[in-house]
Amino acid sequence: MASPLEGGADALLLDLPRGPLQAYRARASFCWKELALFLEGEDVLRLKKTIFSTLENDPLFARSHEEDLSLERYRELSFLRCKRIMEYNLLPLEDMVANPLWFQVFTDCLGMYDWSLAIRLLLNMVTFGLAIYNLGSERHLKYLPKIFNMEIFGCFAVTELSHGSNAKAIRTTAHYDPTTQEFIIHSPDFEAAKFWVGNMGKTATHAVVFAQLYTPEGQCHGLHPFVVQIRNPKTLLPMPGVMIGDMGKKLGLNGVDNGFAMFHKVRIPRQDLLNRTGEVTLEGTYVTPFKDDRQRFGASLGTLSMGRVAIVGMATVNLKLAVSIALRFSATRCQFGPSDEEEIPVLEYQMQQWRLLPYLAAVYALDHFSKSLFLDLVDLQQGLMGKDRSARQAELGREIHALVSASKPLASWTAQQGIQECREACGGHGYLAVNRLGDLRNDNDPNCTYEGDNNILLQQTSSYLLSLLASRIERGVRLESPLKTVDFLEAYPEILGQRFSCPSINSCLDSSVPLAAYEWLVCYLLLESYQKLNEEKRSGRNDFEARNNSQAYYCRPLALAFLELTVVRRFHEYTHQPSVPPQLRAVLGRLSALYALWTLSQHMALLYQGGYFSGEQAGKMIQNAILTLCSQLKDDAVALVDVIAPPDFVLDSPIGRADGELYKNLWTAVLQESQVLKRPSWWLEFTVNKPRVGSLKSKL
Amino acid sequence: MASPLEGGADALLLDLPRGPLQAYRARASFCWKELALFLEGEDVLRLKKTIFSTLENDPLFARSHEEDLSLERYRELSFLRCKRIMEYNLLPLEDMVANPLWFQVFTDCLGMYDWSLAIRLLLNMVTFGLAIYNLGSERHLKYLPKIFNMEIFGCFAVTELSHGSNAKAIRTTAHYDPTTQEFIIHSPDFEAAKFWVGNMGKTATHAVVFAQLYTPEGQCHGLHPFVVQIRNPKTLLPMPGVMIGDMGKKLGLNGVDNGFAMFHKVRIPRQDLLNRTGEVTLEGTYVTPFKDDRQRFGASLGTLSMGRVAIVGMATVNLKLAVSIALRFSATRCQFGPSDEEEIPVLEYQMQQWRLLPYLAAVYALDHFSKSLFLDLVDLQQGLMGKDRSARQAELGREIHALVSASKPLASWTAQQGIQECREACGGHGYLAVNRLGDLRNDNDPNCTYEGDNNILLQQTSSYLLSLLASRIERGVRLESPLKTVDFLEAYPEILGQRFSCPSINSCLDSSVPLAAYEWLVCYLLLESYQKLNEEKRSGRNDFEARNNSQAYYCRPLALAFLELTVVRRFHEYTHQPSVPPQLRAVLGRLSALYALWTLSQHMALLYQGGYFSGEQAGKMIQNAILTLCSQLKDDAVALVDVIAPPDFVLDSPIGRADGELYKNLWTAVLQESQVLKRPSWWLEFTVNKPRVGSLKSKL
Repeated sequence: MASPLEGGADALLLDLPRGPLQAYRARASFCWKELALFLEGEDVLRLKKTIFSTLENDPLFARSHEEDLSLERYRELSFLRCKRIMEYNLLPLEDMVANPLWFQVFTDCLGMYDWSLAIRLLLNMVTFGLAIYNLGSERHLKYLPKIFNMEIFGCFAVTELSHGSNAKAIRTTAHYDPTTQEFIIHSPDFEAAKFWVGNMGKTATHAVVFAQLYTPEGQCHGLHPFVVQIRNPKTLLPMPGVMIGDMGKKLGLNGVDNGFAMFHKVRIPRQDLLNRTGEVTLEGTYVTPFKDDRQRFGASLGTLSMGRVAIVGMATVNLKLAVSIALRFSATRCQFGPSDEEEIPVLEYQMQQWRLLPYLAAVYALDHFSKSLFLDLVDLQQGLMGKDRSARQAELGREIHALVSASKPLASWTAQQGIQECREACGGHGYLAVNRLGDLRNDNDPNCTYEGDNNILLQQTSSYLLSLLASRIERGVRLESPLKTVDFLEAYPEILGQRFSCPSINSCLDSSVPLAAYEWLVCYLLLESYQKLNEEKRSGRNDFEARNNSQAYYCRPLALAFLELTVVRRFHEYTHQPSVPPQLRAVLGRLSALYALWTLSQHMALLYQGGYFSGEQAGKMIQNAILTLCSQLKDDAVALVDVIAPPDFVLDSPIGRADGELYKNLWTAVLQESQVLKRPSWWLEFTVNKPRVGSLKSKL
Repeated sequence: MASPLEGGADALLLDLPRGPLQAYRARASFCWKELALFLEGEDVLRLKKTIFSTLENDPLFARSHEEDLSLERYRELSFLRCKRIMEYNLLPLEDMVANPLWFQVFTDCLGMYDWSLAIRLLLNMVTFGLAIYNLGSERHLKYLPKIFNMEIFGCFAVTELSHGSNAKAIRTTAHYDPTTQEFIIHSPDFEAAKFWVGNMGKTATHAVVFAQLYTPEGQCHGLHPFVVQIRNPKTLLPMPGVMIGDMGKKLGLNGVDNGFAMFHKVRIPRQDLLNRTGEVTLEGTYVTPFKDDRQRFGASLGTLSMGRVAIVGMATVNLKLAVSIALRFSATRCQFGPSDEEEIPVLEYQMQQWRLLPYLAAVYALDHFSKSLFLDLVDLQQGLMGKDRSARQAELGREIHALVSASKPLASWTAQQGIQECREACGGHGYLAVNRLGDLRNDNDPNCTYEGDNNILLQQTSSYLLSLLASRIERGVRLESPLKTVDFLEAYPEILGQRFSCPSINSCLDSSVPLAAYEWLVCYLLLESYQKLNEEKRSGRNDFEARNNSQAYYCRPLALAFLELTVVRRFHEYTHQPSVPPQLRAVLGRLSALYALWTLSQHMALLYQGGYFSGEQAGKMIQNAILTLCSQLKDDAVALVDVIAPPDFVLDSPIGRADGELYKNLWTAVLQESQVLKRPSWWLEFTVNKPRVGSLKSKL
């Protein structure tokens, strides 16, 4: 469709090059520029354009296709790029404060280029900086300007070689010595070495180190954060007593220098205890505003929420890129056809649509959710900064923690599975490194693990829901929460009495149908989990065992289904609001319905098991609705990709370029690799040094 | 358990080092050496030991942990290793002929070390060699000794830049010129360049090239194979008219040099047409023993079966290694516990068991199936060589093609998902390259694509089943096949009337329960698919459309369920045969039941939808049975890994070593990486060249 936009907005979105994708673009039901403007707004489009064109115009960001970029060189490059980003100051602090969402846009844009770059910046400025800000006090503010002018470079050191998920069991110690007013940071053995710390391997000069705090009389007060200088900023050599190294090659994100550190009685000033949650007086007395250790510990790790929300965005970006590549490929790759003479684009096949279009819908749904979750967190953070001690603020904290704890798993897994599907959907060409699907998969993979293992995080969400239900059942407390994500549960007795009803396939093509099914599903799983836990306890198991035995088929799907429902609901509401331009309603409604039905269809067995579905038709109805929506969306798929895909330079995939010249682009890229047409340097090993078959047989 | 083996067999299996895994080993219900001997037999154990110790003792095979091994160097190394393997002649031809299964053992052992090495050998000796043997005639036998002494090095060139799955549409041409009695091999343009050909990038001197054969009057006779010399064996320089290159970096298997080739009117002797399926006389007349082009084409591509069966073994090996690493890790990694003081191995958690043990069971079931399928194929191949033209031989060919076409998808996907689960189950440590889970995933990934895209291959299986059903319904032909994999279908009307019945959880703990459910499921999906196809046709769609619209929820799950049933049935029969030693029956029975129930549980929605299941208890029974089997198997898990894991040198994963010294091994490995403790070479970029924030702002 032609662009109905005028003036400024139109100029922000350049027309795409003509080529083989034109056929699909011409069939789209909507104007991609209009949708982009509706979703992002003019200011964000401008910011994105500035960031992308800055990268493209600066040779330091030139895409290197030497296939042999060494670890050392890659880490150097991503560090140099970090510095350059600071020189551009693409998002000044005042803009960020005025428009917090811009920060997410900024991060995502850099991540689309290369997550290693974005992560190194984030770890220093946000993870390290925010930890100091949130966990420290007045006396630590001095570090902040030093971070922002790169006088120092920071990292965040919690996990150890032998402890990750069980952070409370961390073994690094910090003994207070009142004679010198210092803490002595110490790793009892190599198993307590800090491990996996991003930026620590080669670069960081300072670390926020979590250690067990001991006062002079020998009492342990639990885990506390300390600022520890680990390298000399003038030489980058380790500080005395610090053994610090690089962990070497990872499956991905190799531009980030993850590292380890062992501390041998390293002395730091008393003031470098980040004292928001607990303080040690000059003489060595421990004081804390918190009632119990558990509460204090929770508050000190709360700062991880920002990282988890960032991961939701990261995973969504990765899926966005992968889906863009795979759909442009599918729209231009022709294979087979109704007759031997005519081949059709693989996107015309129902199977290819069914494999890819639900992930396209997932990108739109998760992208919207990720923004809304980020804004929720900003709200919470502002309350924290304003020292809001209201009950609502505390409830908001719990609710957001529960949402975040399932959002990271859902987004990272959806992306991981989606990228793999995209790789396979591009066949062999998807397996060629230059097309980038491998890097996307490898860089996305740790999103399932860091900042909390997905399966363990999900327990936070189910525990939240179960404790609400327990209060309702045991004490009659109304089921509700500040963001209203749990309010529907109040009606659980009625909801559980509902049954699937959908008179026709057409009535199934709206997300209100799966939304109702999800409400039933979450109520069912919640009650089932509650009963299962009680059953376990009644049969003599302690809390630890009861919880462990209720995960696989109860609490885990409960947490995921609850979050899916929340994503579905928010996207449903967003796409059905009156302010949606009429010409965008159909396509947005279909995306909302497809994501909802597809993700619901993974729970079909439970819907039958619990009796919400019965008979053959219920399941078939859902399947038909999914396939119908796929076929309705396939002509819009290329335009929907045009809305979300970054410029070619950033997308960096020959088979996914906007001109759709699949083979020309791929051929050109392959010919650019080094030594591509040359015989191998070791040719004599074939031509002269022939093997003598069995000549070494006697050595066996 | 102590070893009850005596003499020879015991000496073949060395005792494992004592260490932290001892606790689980002591709790095992069986002796791992006894199970190894039962599964493999003494001769195979001896062969494995010879191969593994040969690799370990030869410094050419030393594990290189320079993280920066370049593409060129890796390809050189794997080529040098190919030659060395030939010098050892580890599996002489006469042994292989006497024991065909040894060939699979040999390949799998090399693959456990590194698939790039094994694949380069296989592509030359088997894919190229067997193509010449199967597709050529007497006059081509001259090539075989040259392959075996490496005078020449071969590759197999079907796919082109713009055509893979649709092989018939390949565009390379071979025009016969009677004046010189030559074929002229030509690539009309770069989109017809041969692409993705393993060994072609840097090494191969000869290729079996598939091209459209034209006789002088201008008629095209379809795709035929030709032997084309592409490089000079004395110089490794390309032959005149051949433009040949390396495709560059892939997501994995980077020791294999995949390449491309364009032919510019390259002339080859008439005799180099591989003429089993069609011949051109001196004068230029085309003759073929086949009635139609379709049949001839089928026969010429039939040689791909061996590659697909090999992939089933490859995928199983990859999963075997990943599961070994993840389970040894899980048995030694402690995290959390019933009290703050005591941490327990993560294998004690039901979630971890539920995530990993079904894949352990899958390894055992698929390993058995892979061997049995290989022997079926050997049977078929012997018939082909004996020129067996019986109806049984033809039927056997069809049945094996159908089995193979779903086996490769099932095995490669199970491995891909399982390796990812193992990676995640090892947390961050699974993300460290040195622990090998990344390489396993990346090297396994192309198994989903090459030798036939998984989703497209599955259509071969469903078409086979549907054509049998059509014959039964339309012409009363009895449903049966030489290997009896489809014989149960004859009773489909009765089977479809059956309903799930399992009075107690205990009766559910045997694979006979899921076996019965699978028979119902396959009958249901077969009838549903048949009806769906007819429905599509009745509503006016042609065959092409009808088939395309019946894949997602019909033919695709049909093919997978049929193959799962076959795997389950074969493993059930194997584990329940009288010759199983009594002390192994319990553990093998549990593995069989767990694999069967777990893989069945993925179809639970269908079981409900079609009415085989009803009520809440059916689903819960299956879930409880899975969890019960997991808890029964967790104490056997380490011993079951000891049976399948290769020696530490071959497994090559610090977190998966047999001594279970997880942290010591990992710490040592990390410290071995290059420059691990050194400051970066680019330290001045931090210490001196500080960024000036915003200094480039004006450039935006």
